[in-house]
Amino acid sequence: MKTRIRLADGRELIYFDEKARRREEIDRRKLPKLETAIELRHDPLLDAEVVIASHRQERTYLPPEDECPLCPSTVERSTEIPASDYDVVVFENRFPSFATGSLELLPLPEGDTEVARSSAHGRCEVVCFTSQHDSSFAELPLERVRTVVDVWIDRTAELSAVAGVEQVFCFENRGEEIGVTLHHPHGQIYAYPFVTPRTRRILESARCHRDETGRNLFADVLAGEKKARTRIVAEGDLWTAFVPAFARWPFEVHLYPNRQAPDLAALNGDELAELSRLYRDVLRGFDRLFDLRMPYIAAVHQAPLHSGRDLSYLHLQVFSSRRSPKKLKYLAASESAMNVFINDVRPEEAAQMLRDAVERGRRQ
Amino acid sequence: MKTRIRLADGRELIYFDEKARRREEIDRRKLPKLETAIELRHDPLLDAEVVIASHRQERTYLPPEDECPLCPSTVERSTEIPASDYDVVVFENRFPSFATGSLELLPLPEGDTEVARSSAHGRCEVVCFTSQHDSSFAELPLERVRTVVDVWIDRTAELSAVAGVEQVFCFENRGEEIGVTLHHPHGQIYAYPFVTPRTRRILESARCHRDETGRNLFADVLAGEKKARTRIVAEGDLWTAFVPAFARWPFEVHLYPNRQAPDLAALNGDELAELSRLYRDVLRGFDRLFDLRMPYIAAVHQAPLHSGRDLSYLHLQVFSSRRSPKKLKYLAASESAMNVFINDVRPEEAAQMLRDAVERGRRQ
Repeated sequence: MKTRIRLADGRELIYFDEKARRREEIDRRKLPKLETAIELRHDPLLDAEVVIASHRQERTYLPPEDECPLCPSTVERSTEIPASDYDVVVFENRFPSFATGSLELLPLPEGDTEVARSSAHGRCEVVCFTSQHDSSFAELPLERVRTVVDVWIDRTAELSAVAGVEQVFCFENRGEEIGVTLHHPHGQIYAYPFVTPRTRRILESARCHRDETGRNLFADVLAGEKKARTRIVAEGDLWTAFVPAFARWPFEVHLYPNRQAPDLAALNGDELAELSRLYRDVLRGFDRLFDLRMPYIAAVHQAPLHSGRDLSYLHLQVFSSRRSPKKLKYLAASESAMNVFINDVRPEEAAQMLRDAVERGRRQ
Repeated sequence: MKTRIRLADGRELIYFDEKARRREEIDRRKLPKLETAIELRHDPLLDAEVVIASHRQERTYLPPEDECPLCPSTVERSTEIPASDYDVVVFENRFPSFATGSLELLPLPEGDTEVARSSAHGRCEVVCFTSQHDSSFAELPLERVRTVVDVWIDRTAELSAVAGVEQVFCFENRGEEIGVTLHHPHGQIYAYPFVTPRTRRILESARCHRDETGRNLFADVLAGEKKARTRIVAEGDLWTAFVPAFARWPFEVHLYPNRQAPDLAALNGDELAELSRLYRDVLRGFDRLFDLRMPYIAAVHQAPLHSGRDLSYLHLQVFSSRRSPKKLKYLAASESAMNVFINDVRPEEAAQMLRDAVERGRRQ
């Protein structure tokens, strides 16, 4: 059941309740009006958009647990979520990288007429996976995982209708090691006003591949991994999870449905059910790898809204910068300045370790 | 004066002495033979090379100061550098990402015939800027900075002659925050057996720009910044240092010569002298910004050896992930999974801060 309310500063909040509930709580905070000094600039060298979002410098940074803004509100303390409990809740980010409405561009110093820039129209949402502060995605019951997947589909559909939006990206950043500023289990959704540079690049490759072979590039990558079997981490009847032979990160898993689909909305009920199980298995495997909470980035790669949909192939990508219990992979000059990744863990070895870890996670 | 020797395991070491010196010290260590399990794989989605270098997992990691392998040797302790003192010294990396000689590929598990891979021919060198463990590039005397620049030119020429090498990349990673495992002031040089993905991408843009306008893309970017003036951090008669309007990092400076040149070797003496001063000024500015040793990546972008040289424009790039005295910028899902950078510091503001910091550095 879906209930919409407005927060004190006008941002939208949506409860996604697994059982019907009345949601009448009101946000009683006095919140300052949102300052959204955001603009989009274009890098002519790399042909890429860069978001300049200077208001984000002041965003909430690792608050103590009793000040967590994603926990339910109590009589003593009002948080971002007015209710005293929730299942899954989505709300507009208070420190967004993209926003709706009429965005004013900050003035440039006099005489500077050289900058090509535009408003960063779009929307950024926060998705709280559970009201339990100390939980994690991997610890959610299966029903809840499925609710989150359904929320991703709901939000993708709704954000696709926002003026100017070209691609909707559901993701989770987890762990202080990769800069997460709030520990409460949550993900985010970015509705970008352009097709992202990575997606554009991949679609170029997919187009060349189809022109040359008549086949879908992603389907060929998947077929190769299913034939080799060496790097498969987990699989079901409808999905395959593997470490790609060309993994950039020490531990990186891609989840592909066994048939081509542009986005989550194109999947049927069985596929969504199996995705929920397999995705949780993979996340549990990450945490079992070194028996510590792995930092990770989890990305749902969906097709852009208005281009390349026939070439696109929905997939999820989970990767971690932790290369051993005590060491992290950093992106240094080769990666950051030349875009050449050096991976210190062999994909075949990573797959073996992850396969064992997923197995251990299942036995728990 | 340049003196070549061999280390105990056969790696080459070259002394670059500012005054003539005899170099007769011998490496007396018993070193195991180099294990170089490196291979190059191709990511067909992003059309990028990925280096799999599993032997690097065991590389030296933050040794205590009295075990620094980059300090000169003493009677009690043999380091990577046999001499008891040195100016600048270059040697082959013991944990390389690319190597020369006949490289054997590690076998793949049986039945896995799906992986396109090749040997990672090339060479990785370490450049020690000074024998002073606690110093830094910004603290080098000007004469030494110029020696380092000359070493970059020397190494670029020599590595360009290594079979298969397509691009030579001189860089410095500085600071534990970005994963530097040795604190002794040093940089590195990678001789890549391919044109790096970032360079390929930029050359594509430069080619389109020339086809459309007849002009050089980099020259137009520089002209725009010189006209706007807002983001110029420091300048001389022959060089300009600025924060690009499309900076991805909180503090990012590009140094362009005022005329097009493909690489360092194409510069004249005056240009090299001014580069040395201006580059050191910029690095000092980084350290004065928050009065702490800034983590940074410094990259010398030179033209590839065999393609796109007419489109290329030598430039240096220095950027830091530190966005405030206590906060770092992390690459999370938007950056790492979509290649969309969110910069929390406005380039105009960063330029003003850096301009002031460079000025403070000069007054010291």
